[in-house]
Amino acid sequence: MSRSIITLTTDFGLGSPYVAQMKGVILSINPAATVVDVTHAVPPQDVRQGALVLGDVTPRFPAGSIHIAVIDPGVGTERQIIGAEIAGHFYVAPDNGLLARLAADDPGRRQVALTNREYHLPEISATFHGRDIMAPVAAHLSLGTCLDDLGPPVQTLVPLPWPEVAADGNQISGSILTKDVFGNLITNIDASHVARLGRLDALTVHCGGRTIRGLVRTYGQRPAGSLVALFGSSGRLEIAVVNGNAATHLDAKTGDSVAVTLGAVGKPPE
Amino acid sequence: MSRSIITLTTDFGLGSPYVAQMKGVILSINPAATVVDVTHAVPPQDVRQGALVLGDVTPRFPAGSIHIAVIDPGVGTERQIIGAEIAGHFYVAPDNGLLARLAADDPGRRQVALTNREYHLPEISATFHGRDIMAPVAAHLSLGTCLDDLGPPVQTLVPLPWPEVAADGNQISGSILTKDVFGNLITNIDASHVARLGRLDALTVHCGGRTIRGLVRTYGQRPAGSLVALFGSSGRLEIAVVNGNAATHLDAKTGDSVAVTLGAVGKPPE
Amino acid sequence: MSRSIITLTTDFGLGSPYVAQMKGVILSINPAATVVDVTHAVPPQDVRQGALVLGDVTPRFPAGSIHIAVIDPGVGTERQIIGAEIAGHFYVAPDNGLLARLAADDPGRRQVALTNREYHLPEISATFHGRDIMAPVAAHLSLGTCLDDLGPPVQTLVPLPWPEVAADGNQISGSILTKDVFGNLITNIDASHVARLGRLDALTVHCGGRTIRGLVRTYGQRPAGSLVALFGSSGRLEIAVVNGNAATHLDAKTGDSVAVTLGAVGKPPE
Repeated sequence: MSRSIITLTTDFGLGSPYVAQMKGVILSINPAATVVDVTHAVPPQDVRQGALVLGDVTPRFPAGSIHIAVIDPGVGTERQIIGAEIAGHFYVAPDNGLLARLAADDPGRRQVALTNREYHLPEISATFHGRDIMAPVAAHLSLGTCLDDLGPPVQTLVPLPWPEVAADGNQISGSILTKDVFGNLITNIDASHVARLGRLDALTVHCGGRTIRGLVRTYGQRPAGSLVALFGSSGRLEIAVVNGNAATHLDAKTGDSVAVTLGAVGKPPE
Repeated sequence: MSRSIITLTTDFGLGSPYVAQMKGVILSINPAATVVDVTHAVPPQDVRQGALVLGDVTPRFPAGSIHIAVIDPGVGTERQIIGAEIAGHFYVAPDNGLLARLAADDPGRRQVALTNREYHLPEISATFHGRDIMAPVAAHLSLGTCLDDLGPPVQTLVPLPWPEVAADGNQISGSILTKDVFGNLITNIDASHVARLGRLDALTVHCGGRTIRGLVRTYGQRPAGSLVALFGSSGRLEIAVVNGNAATHLDAKTGDSVAVTLGAVGKPPE
Repeated sequence: MSRSIITLTTDFGLGSPYVAQMKGVILSINPAATVVDVTHAVPPQDVRQGALVLGDVTPRFPAGSIHIAVIDPGVGTERQIIGAEIAGHFYVAPDNGLLARLAADDPGRRQVALTNREYHLPEISATFHGRDIMAPVAAHLSLGTCLDDLGPPVQTLVPLPWPEVAADGNQISGSILTKDVFGNLITNIDASHVARLGRLDALTVHCGGRTIRGLVRTYGQRPAGSLVALFGSSGRLEIAVVNGNAATHLDAKTGDSVAVTLGAVGKPPE
């Protein structure tokens, strides 16, 4: 188990020098830490998108890695900051739902409130706890500090609202969770939801008033410009335009309905 | 004191492969260097913004770190390139004002002109001294080369024009230095300027034809959409819209006037 | 020769968390690897631009570095993925032309098809071979795995169409290859093409209906706003506006004609 890797996921925006302030604080405490950017392009204050990225990316890192997430619309208010050990990884984040989905998958998780000032910077600003609390705590974790030394245990985490997938006869109803940088639309429907409906090429996907017959295995199976549906690299149903941008093509946005039906029959979403 | 950390601050733009050329040069000379991006989103040729970022970020790194700054509108002309030791850190930058504010705070600083070709790449292009001179010099510094070996001492640095803050009776007059990625407006007024006026909640901030009564401690104290003023994470007075963008909301830009007055009285800026 | 450096060149877009998934996979196999971003801003599926960046940047890294390039419009189709040793560096990329220009310059190169599943992730998605095949193979290379263990030798690589430069009497005719983040227009004409025409200040450059008399050595030789031509940091003829954006100024795009003539005479490109 390697504790020397620290990752950063924030909504600071591309090019923000706030990220480097956190890296400076980390390297001042542990100059041997390997600091890796996950992304700083989470839309401002979008806790759900932050949780999605953390769930997709952090399990790819070695066990023992330490993951800081700063999507923190409540900075300076009474929200707690949490240190957690979940599925063999460490997380440092505000308690605002960011860690809820990861935590739900590990009944053996442990979490503490980061109240021990000994592991924070001497001066705490009111607006940048990522730099003043989360970065130094993560750096101390990377040096071997125990979670229990950072503050008292916390029993429950703030939950994260998440759109549910519904199954009704031969129809699976879900919605768009987010879009990626290619404009591919990522839904909350995964392979396990669809498995009961039958063969992939006999399915129809309904989204944004459009109908897509059959799922493809990869983009290259259709000519450029084709609207296709497929299971993407994180196992979620995606709607894409080959070499194009599905989000603009369908004028689709987070929360829009998506349905999967057997054959060409089935009621499209309202 | 660790000399293995080298940071990069440039105006090369997001995604520019020029940055990686510098990293390749550094790692070819010192494969064990830890290279950290500060930002590459300084607006092109904006020396003042570069100086602001260097002042906010570099002191967060461990003593002995080496900071390269390439905002260099005069590349290939007669401007000098400087190596400096300021407040326990090393800096490598063109002598165009980038280091002036940091240097002014350390009377014990030392600086040399980087004229010793032994520490440059064998071929020097006319347009990319960041890669051909600054990167190799920083890499050699990280291996322990002395500043004095890099070139002859320089007595004075090129100064950097900086907008002044004026106090007149119960009014403090300053201006907007820059905006951050959230659209928060950062001013040249800091807490020490305002301390003489009295309690923070009895102050009024004037900017862009708008009046903000009282300062908040953090964004979360007001509902989304509120226009607020506060001291940000670098100690400067900031004007912000909670979960919004103050720069677009006020149509404000660098150089615009900002005033702080006691109570609701006081003349707003012209 | 250091094999611990792994660079990444992709078209995933700025801020994409897909990059961090690859880094997590690499660090899970070799936690001591130094992973460096070249750029993730290659335009989607633009193999030529990817090849240009690889050629400009990767030779700047130490011999033995491992360079992953994921511009992969054919992911999931029958295109091969290649591991290659070219000019002392290792490359891992789809066989779609990305490596063709680098390979052409090294008759002693070796290349294999990455078919040995032992060095891939246990589960291979249909859409993200950068994470599931290329990242783990590069990590194993960094630990000392031999190229020959990764799969069978491949004799020829897929070629990359490249616009030619033509010389006709006193005129050199070429075209715009790409623009950089400053809007400088980079052409396929380099110094060796122009050498036969004579003195740089006696040349005229024709582009976008405009005529530029004489080449400058660096931007700072002309006042802000001037349209200039010069040999840039990679040795290619560039057309630039001093402190401005030549691409928007000339409304120029990739593929547009550029000609260099002796003196003010010569036929401009159609």
